[in-house]
Amino acid sequence: MEGKEEDVKLGANKFLERQPIGTSAQTDKDYKEPPPAPLFDPGELKSWSFWRAGVAEFIATFLFLYITVLTVMGVSRARNKCASVGSQGIAWAFGGTIFALVYCTAGISGGHINPAVTFGLFLARKLSLTRAVFYIVMQSLGAIAGAGVVKGFQKSQYELLGGGANVVNHGYTKGDGLGAEIVGTFVLVYTVFSATDAKRNARDSHVPILAPLPIGFAVFLVHLATIPITGTGINPARSLGAAIIYNKDHAWDDHWIFWVGPFIGAALAALYHQLVIRAIPFKTRD
Amino acid sequence: MEGKEEDVKLGANKFLERQPIGTSAQTDKDYKEPPPAPLFDPGELKSWSFWRAGVAEFIATFLFLYITVLTVMGVSRARNKCASVGSQGIAWAFGGTIFALVYCTAGISGGHINPAVTFGLFLARKLSLTRAVFYIVMQSLGAIAGAGVVKGFQKSQYELLGGGANVVNHGYTKGDGLGAEIVGTFVLVYTVFSATDAKRNARDSHVPILAPLPIGFAVFLVHLATIPITGTGINPARSLGAAIIYNKDHAWDDHWIFWVGPFIGAALAALYHQLVIRAIPFKTRD
Amino acid sequence: MEGKEEDVKLGANKFLERQPIGTSAQTDKDYKEPPPAPLFDPGELKSWSFWRAGVAEFIATFLFLYITVLTVMGVSRARNKCASVGSQGIAWAFGGTIFALVYCTAGISGGHINPAVTFGLFLARKLSLTRAVFYIVMQSLGAIAGAGVVKGFQKSQYELLGGGANVVNHGYTKGDGLGAEIVGTFVLVYTVFSATDAKRNARDSHVPILAPLPIGFAVFLVHLATIPITGTGINPARSLGAAIIYNKDHAWDDHWIFWVGPFIGAALAALYHQLVIRAIPFKTRD
Amino acid sequence: MEGKEEDVKLGANKFLERQPIGTSAQTDKDYKEPPPAPLFDPGELKSWSFWRAGVAEFIATFLFLYITVLTVMGVSRARNKCASVGSQGIAWAFGGTIFALVYCTAGISGGHINPAVTFGLFLARKLSLTRAVFYIVMQSLGAIAGAGVVKGFQKSQYELLGGGANVVNHGYTKGDGLGAEIVGTFVLVYTVFSATDAKRNARDSHVPILAPLPIGFAVFLVHLATIPITGTGINPARSLGAAIIYNKDHAWDDHWIFWVGPFIGAALAALYHQLVIRAIPFKTRD
Repeated sequence: MEGKEEDVKLGANKFLERQPIGTSAQTDKDYKEPPPAPLFDPGELKSWSFWRAGVAEFIATFLFLYITVLTVMGVSRARNKCASVGSQGIAWAFGGTIFALVYCTAGISGGHINPAVTFGLFLARKLSLTRAVFYIVMQSLGAIAGAGVVKGFQKSQYELLGGGANVVNHGYTKGDGLGAEIVGTFVLVYTVFSATDAKRNARDSHVPILAPLPIGFAVFLVHLATIPITGTGINPARSLGAAIIYNKDHAWDDHWIFWVGPFIGAALAALYHQLVIRAIPFKTRD
Repeated sequence: MEGKEEDVKLGANKFLERQPIGTSAQTDKDYKEPPPAPLFDPGELKSWSFWRAGVAEFIATFLFLYITVLTVMGVSRARNKCASVGSQGIAWAFGGTIFALVYCTAGISGGHINPAVTFGLFLARKLSLTRAVFYIVMQSLGAIAGAGVVKGFQKSQYELLGGGANVVNHGYTKGDGLGAEIVGTFVLVYTVFSATDAKRNARDSHVPILAPLPIGFAVFLVHLATIPITGTGINPARSLGAAIIYNKDHAWDDHWIFWVGPFIGAALAALYHQLVIRAIPFKTRD
Repeated sequence: MEGKEEDVKLGANKFLERQPIGTSAQTDKDYKEPPPAPLFDPGELKSWSFWRAGVAEFIATFLFLYITVLTVMGVSRARNKCASVGSQGIAWAFGGTIFALVYCTAGISGGHINPAVTFGLFLARKLSLTRAVFYIVMQSLGAIAGAGVVKGFQKSQYELLGGGANVVNHGYTKGDGLGAEIVGTFVLVYTVFSATDAKRNARDSHVPILAPLPIGFAVFLVHLATIPITGTGINPARSLGAAIIYNKDHAWDDHWIFWVGPFIGAALAALYHQLVIRAIPFKTRD
Repeated sequence: MEGKEEDVKLGANKFLERQPIGTSAQTDKDYKEPPPAPLFDPGELKSWSFWRAGVAEFIATFLFLYITVLTVMGVSRARNKCASVGSQGIAWAFGGTIFALVYCTAGISGGHINPAVTFGLFLARKLSLTRAVFYIVMQSLGAIAGAGVVKGFQKSQYELLGGGANVVNHGYTKGDGLGAEIVGTFVLVYTVFSATDAKRNARDSHVPILAPLPIGFAVFLVHLATIPITGTGINPARSLGAAIIYNKDHAWDDHWIFWVGPFIGAALAALYHQLVIRAIPFKTRD
């Protein structure tokens, strides 16, 4: 396509006048793309904000598992599902908790609360490898602790009722489960990229403030759609925490799906955002 | 009405002082109405942003059908509806997905994700005919792909349980179905026009940022009301995608309703907005 | 209380520093309270924006009744309530529609869509008597038309199933119904006053943009609480439209409750806001 | 950790560039931390805004109990839970009412509506002891009045069905109940601190406007998770109001849990926010 490179720089302005809905197209004014994060940034390890971010990820993932697995257990225990908050209540618990916790921790750690989100943003070079690994470890530890507290309330019921662990449900193949995890995580990480695109931030400073709401909704929606298939993972820390505390063979059999699927989905979302939306490879570096 | 023409220009300012709720009336300050989009804009076809917009509409409509039809199937499969997310969960899936996807794609393509929205905005001359046709084709292809992936999960169940295709339900006439589609799409496209009125944008730059939420709610509300009548279309691409993948006679028999109804509803909303709200024919062109 | 008058002017600034949550206290900067609206403003009748506002109230109340009564009918018809959107879905229909419609019409008419809101704002002298009467007439006509269209879908079912008309349910006295309407409307109109306080607007221009959300939630919440008592009115136009189209004796017997209750509730909210929150009688006029 | 003290002042700026999601990290520009509120501020007692704040807390807590306990009663009375708004509707009533009422009263009193929130903010020295005690008294009186009005509708049913009083449900120990209250209140007060952090306010003036939404969601989410355990307190005034009006021994037996739990949870949230997030003890006072 001739003129494409220039268009990447100029096209948005051309398009601006007849932009019909929502946020207007990107203008290049008052915006400078940040350089990619280095893989290793030794200075980071000496900063308080680095360690604080890890603590914040731990606490947020702990609270995420606590609220959501407890809600799942409440529905599982109910003999009459109509007297419980139901499957829809479970979907609200997952999505709503992500909304509230991203709102609370975005200013401290970026509010990932999910290794797939961390992985996607790492691929886009938004954070260093050191930070990515540190976040994923802290998220996993927080998730284990959160599920553990829920088990503490009712040990026997927890083991009887599945403990919120993700498995591929009867009637679906492992391929179905993997596919559902890939597309579901794509929806989430695509929303994360859209909501936090630095170009949008530069243009309109309150976009990041609103970002947690569509991110939370993305999680809610994927649960509405795929709870019948896998219980919905799209967050390897959530799946790991529930699996470790539940610790039965059939949860471990499918467990790889809840790491491979989300990481593929996140990678596809990063690719889509960088190649199509941002067209970064086609841009000249100034 | 005497003085009407002047009032169109001045009335809003007069009214300003006792505007009791919500956004204040329109002032003409720092606002210049964009000229109507040309029917054909050859330059558009050479711009990266044009093709990118089409890809974004394809992906968004794909994800829309994937999430919503999968949710519908989950409810249809459940023997005990109380153990599923229920009809209300279906309504949330449709409305919530539109909220999240409009939020994500508004800055890229305008975030239509619906041929009726594209048609309404075309009538208001907010985009060229070329772009409108291109969007509708991409939306339809995305919808077919999204429904196809859902069928891939469980082929036999999909055919048994209706596949989320829109039909006029038992107890209602085709006229009822058509009426429900017209009014339902009016609600949606009226909200789109209100949320994206260029005058509001000029006045207050964060209105478009908030626009996705009422637009998503409009979709949710119409589903609450008309799922019992037609399953709710108000989006010809959604109806087409489900019908093609389901591909049974009784879905095709009613299919015209889900194009004619939404297009009439969108046209009425465009008419109402241009004639009554904007009073454009009564304005002098400066 | 000594020093009270001065405190009304100065207190907010004093309090500012330790305002713990949410919007900070009011400062008097860049704010001038608008004069009370005149009872009759002859110029208004010649302005396009006045008549346009009436049309907008008609259309909005029409759509409000259409969506909500259709949702009520869908739930009433369902043999298995779990297969319908349920009582919670009805509450969302009422609250969500108010959210979307206030968002859409706030810039045109103020977005009342409810005679009780119009009455409360009139008592606070935010609009003229002429405009208040005109709005209430248009709201009532719109409501009748909206309920009429719903009846058109299924005449016999509509009459069998109550048509969404408000009555005091079995097990409650008329006094209970009146009380529920008074407190319920107080909640709604109190939220309207809080969301649209001119002082908040002056201080922070995006408050009115966000106003529709808590207003819609107020309607949702009152429905959650009082559907079992009266079906929830808190909007005389909504009650009138349903009663006229349903037109059975037992709906008319209780009908006065759904005008007297909301008007008392709105008056109490106006009183509370003017006397306690704004302390207007204690202020010196500059 | 060497350099930590300086990092507390500088770290946020360093981190800024690769902040991936949501609100960017804190910068110290145009921000001056307010001094801690004095324990006793005699001037406060002479200000209108002080007494007005107490009235606003009374009215808000009255409306909170009225809406929520009435919703609980409606669900308890229903023979078929599917015909009621269900447990999920109860969770929405609690969370939604907090959202709407915090929105309405934040500018008047700070919008606590909960002694645990008042206690947490007092520990962070955001308000004086005088004001804290005054708020807690007014909240408790408002809660008693709200539950009393609900009992007035149907006295015998109220006593039969539990009146919304909090007790530790069958199958859980008192320790479980206490733990659920501690973590639940931690979630709420942590959200309150995050949403109202003065640093965020200084940086971005519309954060407090949005604060009520995540705060309301936090309440909603904790209800989804812990209604099966204790009915969910996390608000001592709500528990006290329901217990006094219900007034049966088994409600009083567990009542201490609903004061001790929320106060411990609020204290932990204040500690976490001051020590980890704000790192206040490690800062030099300028």
